[in-house]
Amino acid sequence: MTLSCPDRPGIVNKVTGALLEVGANILESAQFGDPDTATFTLRTVFDCDASEDSISTVLDPIVAHLSAQVRLRPADYRPRVLIMVSRYEHCLLDLLYRHQNGELAIEIPLIVSNHTVAAPMAAHYGIPFEHVPVTPESKAEAERILMRRVEDLGIDLVVLARYMQVLSPEVCAALEGKAINIHHSFLPGFKGPRPYHQAHERGVKMIGATAHYVNTDLDEGPIIEQDVARVTHALSAEDMVRVGRDVERMVLSRAVRYHTEERVILIGDKTVVFS
Amino acid sequence: MTLSCPDRPGIVNKVTGALLEVGANILESAQFGDPDTATFTLRTVFDCDASEDSISTVLDPIVAHLSAQVRLRPADYRPRVLIMVSRYEHCLLDLLYRHQNGELAIEIPLIVSNHTVAAPMAAHYGIPFEHVPVTPESKAEAERILMRRVEDLGIDLVVLARYMQVLSPEVCAALEGKAINIHHSFLPGFKGPRPYHQAHERGVKMIGATAHYVNTDLDEGPIIEQDVARVTHALSAEDMVRVGRDVERMVLSRAVRYHTEERVILIGDKTVVFS
Amino acid sequence: MTLSCPDRPGIVNKVTGALLEVGANILESAQFGDPDTATFTLRTVFDCDASEDSISTVLDPIVAHLSAQVRLRPADYRPRVLIMVSRYEHCLLDLLYRHQNGELAIEIPLIVSNHTVAAPMAAHYGIPFEHVPVTPESKAEAERILMRRVEDLGIDLVVLARYMQVLSPEVCAALEGKAINIHHSFLPGFKGPRPYHQAHERGVKMIGATAHYVNTDLDEGPIIEQDVARVTHALSAEDMVRVGRDVERMVLSRAVRYHTEERVILIGDKTVVFS
Amino acid sequence: MTLSCPDRPGIVNKVTGALLEVGANILESAQFGDPDTATFTLRTVFDCDASEDSISTVLDPIVAHLSAQVRLRPADYRPRVLIMVSRYEHCLLDLLYRHQNGELAIEIPLIVSNHTVAAPMAAHYGIPFEHVPVTPESKAEAERILMRRVEDLGIDLVVLARYMQVLSPEVCAALEGKAINIHHSFLPGFKGPRPYHQAHERGVKMIGATAHYVNTDLDEGPIIEQDVARVTHALSAEDMVRVGRDVERMVLSRAVRYHTEERVILIGDKTVVFS
Repeated sequence: MTLSCPDRPGIVNKVTGALLEVGANILESAQFGDPDTATFTLRTVFDCDASEDSISTVLDPIVAHLSAQVRLRPADYRPRVLIMVSRYEHCLLDLLYRHQNGELAIEIPLIVSNHTVAAPMAAHYGIPFEHVPVTPESKAEAERILMRRVEDLGIDLVVLARYMQVLSPEVCAALEGKAINIHHSFLPGFKGPRPYHQAHERGVKMIGATAHYVNTDLDEGPIIEQDVARVTHALSAEDMVRVGRDVERMVLSRAVRYHTEERVILIGDKTVVFS
Repeated sequence: MTLSCPDRPGIVNKVTGALLEVGANILESAQFGDPDTATFTLRTVFDCDASEDSISTVLDPIVAHLSAQVRLRPADYRPRVLIMVSRYEHCLLDLLYRHQNGELAIEIPLIVSNHTVAAPMAAHYGIPFEHVPVTPESKAEAERILMRRVEDLGIDLVVLARYMQVLSPEVCAALEGKAINIHHSFLPGFKGPRPYHQAHERGVKMIGATAHYVNTDLDEGPIIEQDVARVTHALSAEDMVRVGRDVERMVLSRAVRYHTEERVILIGDKTVVFS
Repeated sequence: MTLSCPDRPGIVNKVTGALLEVGANILESAQFGDPDTATFTLRTVFDCDASEDSISTVLDPIVAHLSAQVRLRPADYRPRVLIMVSRYEHCLLDLLYRHQNGELAIEIPLIVSNHTVAAPMAAHYGIPFEHVPVTPESKAEAERILMRRVEDLGIDLVVLARYMQVLSPEVCAALEGKAINIHHSFLPGFKGPRPYHQAHERGVKMIGATAHYVNTDLDEGPIIEQDVARVTHALSAEDMVRVGRDVERMVLSRAVRYHTEERVILIGDKTVVFS
Repeated sequence: MTLSCPDRPGIVNKVTGALLEVGANILESAQFGDPDTATFTLRTVFDCDASEDSISTVLDPIVAHLSAQVRLRPADYRPRVLIMVSRYEHCLLDLLYRHQNGELAIEIPLIVSNHTVAAPMAAHYGIPFEHVPVTPESKAEAERILMRRVEDLGIDLVVLARYMQVLSPEVCAALEGKAINIHHSFLPGFKGPRPYHQAHERGVKMIGATAHYVNTDLDEGPIIEQDVARVTHALSAEDMVRVGRDVERMVLSRAVRYHTEERVILIGDKTVVFS
């Protein structure tokens, strides 16, 4: 369960009281009160024989009383993730391998790509692959297909794993808080295209990557995770691309794990990450 | 407040209920249930007008019921720290500067050294300094002086900031959980003397430092914090000493901060650190 | 070209003179004089139209004069790497993907495993796979097969990518300087089996991995590369295994890249790494 | 000796030949050819009984022939560094301590500050301190004083150790390549004032610091060194200031060491750092 509400005394006591009532045993719990917005956030994992309905019955009045936003889901629920990719496969591979070995407890009903490069990899991992080419003319139709797949397949999260097409503001708005992008720079530095070339040009000594929720403001969405790697004058822009790949895939995979384990709570355009 | 007790359902609810009763508003809270030992640990910071006595009155029955170990202290209490040092001053300086700029909310009633090198630094920061030489003959007496100072000055924590004398088992036992040492290697690698020379000899690619509670088993106490720095073949053992100094002082200062902010709870010979 | 010889004045001048003579243009060069052993090491990459033979003709007298060990190879030569693996595939996958995307400029003529788990992955990447089961009885025969493959396939490097069988002293000796192992701890800490469980037991705050040349002294070979990741009290030994996988594959892949790009020179049981 | 010149074959051979001629024994050498600008750079440390004059006699024709820029200085020369500081002393303290313990082989003839806060620290370390207040009216005069001190004291490097006044374009131009500033963000992110507050506002997951040469374009000078530290949602802007202090002082001290050990060569607005 995750919960977010205006901060006030007694929240934890009320919530834990309700959970006790249905015989829940708390396994893990983390909380954070944001002083800037006076918002209280809570993530708790519990063991409980009661049905989801009986838990809701007990929690609902409290939730209403607290004006809280609550997500309640079985710990063994596997969020359904649609992955979008273009030609660079390193992030996709990282997600597929972690999916296969159990690190990411998710379902991947579909991979969508505007190229066909990733089709063999998808096949190897047994994931359906759909090629949806994007041209200026077909872009609107491509997005309609995407949104239909999201709906038809009950998708919980869209991951842009180096998907190189900019989504329209409508799609960004529709997927707000439900789509994660990896930007290949340490935001807010080097927004926009070819960030490694920008970094090389500027002569920075570290490069990074940023996983963030997609919003209508390109490369400005709430940041979930970032990391960096050290570089030197001796690295070309292409070398930085190589070094950056490792950072990108680590950062994106961590962000996807945090999100799908319900470890991320949005407060405005910032994230609380119970890592 | 920190609390440690055998794990069972309802602990958080009981404790938060008691805190509500005395009008406490929780500002910060973190908890951890250790599956290996079935121990529950909790650290909570709260705002409360009630006196410490009234809080205890409400908490005591719960504490007894839970067979809990509880530490309750005002957030503005400044733990009293005695620092011991030999000839290398970098860790001492780091602690003194953080003390001066307010990062470490502690009192430092005394610095004890078996050398006089650090006396001017102590004077500059306005901290009393006592020179207690240690020879094989005077060691027992030196330790008696130390323990008397600990008692007389109401010392909460002894920090061995590169104090190069081995404490006797009796002193280690007396200070268990109340003395932090910095070992200049990434334990459990390179125990014992001259760890950087051992590291250089072995050709490692990273060196580290470890802050740990002192116990009777030299370099084997519960680890509080560790960190590393990258080294190369081009560094001599002396270069590693230089690189290592930065790691040592960071690691020790973090450990002291964690301890004095009551962020560390001991479970057996391991630590829970609510960083 | 890499060169290693007793240190003395004039080495670089002689070598660069010889290279000039054959019209070589130096693209990259790094050198290191080890004060402990008075050994000079050099790695230089140059562009040259002359044949390997003419280069040797010019270099040979200098090499003899310097009592140097020299390796000279075309920059586009792709070292032939045999990978051994047991049941954990993360390191293997990392190597195969970097091979496929061009980061590792190597040939992989064969994957050998004492299990069949990795066969589909090998097939997907188009690499021959041989299952060589190892039992106490068949171990000697399995090693004979291995050494025959090394010879028949002209193998330059054997990579133990989480190969869980201990090689016999004879094989270790035969492959000295030509076999890299990944040990899943930050050596010299936690030698031997189940290092993550040892690390969890000890309560360390960082875990690591070490890539080293295989020698007859288990987990004691020359270290090529190491790295670490931060862990907390909240991680189980199994969680540490998960975190450790990322460190292992990064460290092993870097070590393989360093070796196959001729960036590693052995001095005794330590390495010079021109990274 | 450091050398920078248009790249062409034979440079190293010529230079090492000249050094051999004067009986120099090379102790350390690093080189880099920048493909973007076709510039060759070299740093070499050598042991030599010949006088500086005789070395110059041998080198001069080569230098002229190569159109090279060369700096030649005795290894035991201690560059003269003037430190400027405002109210935050952490960077200053780090420099003074490293100066005192020998890590920084420099002279510090003067500390200049627009405040008096740092006077006691300067006194403790035995460094002359001059208070030069800066108001809109007195700024021009303050800069005249600064430039006079630079000249009179034979200053090689000016270090802005959290000096919070913007230098005029004239002073920046006069000190080009001879003044290092620490900016308390991971440039190019968060230029301008209060970068930690900007970072907190943006919700980044890492903060950093950047040491760069001062030029007329504020926060845009050539970067020498950068580093970062991990932060979380739980840190306030003030907490980030605290975390950032450690990054700032490490980064600035490293940059000063690199510069004063002649490890930095400027190519346009980028640096080669032979670290």
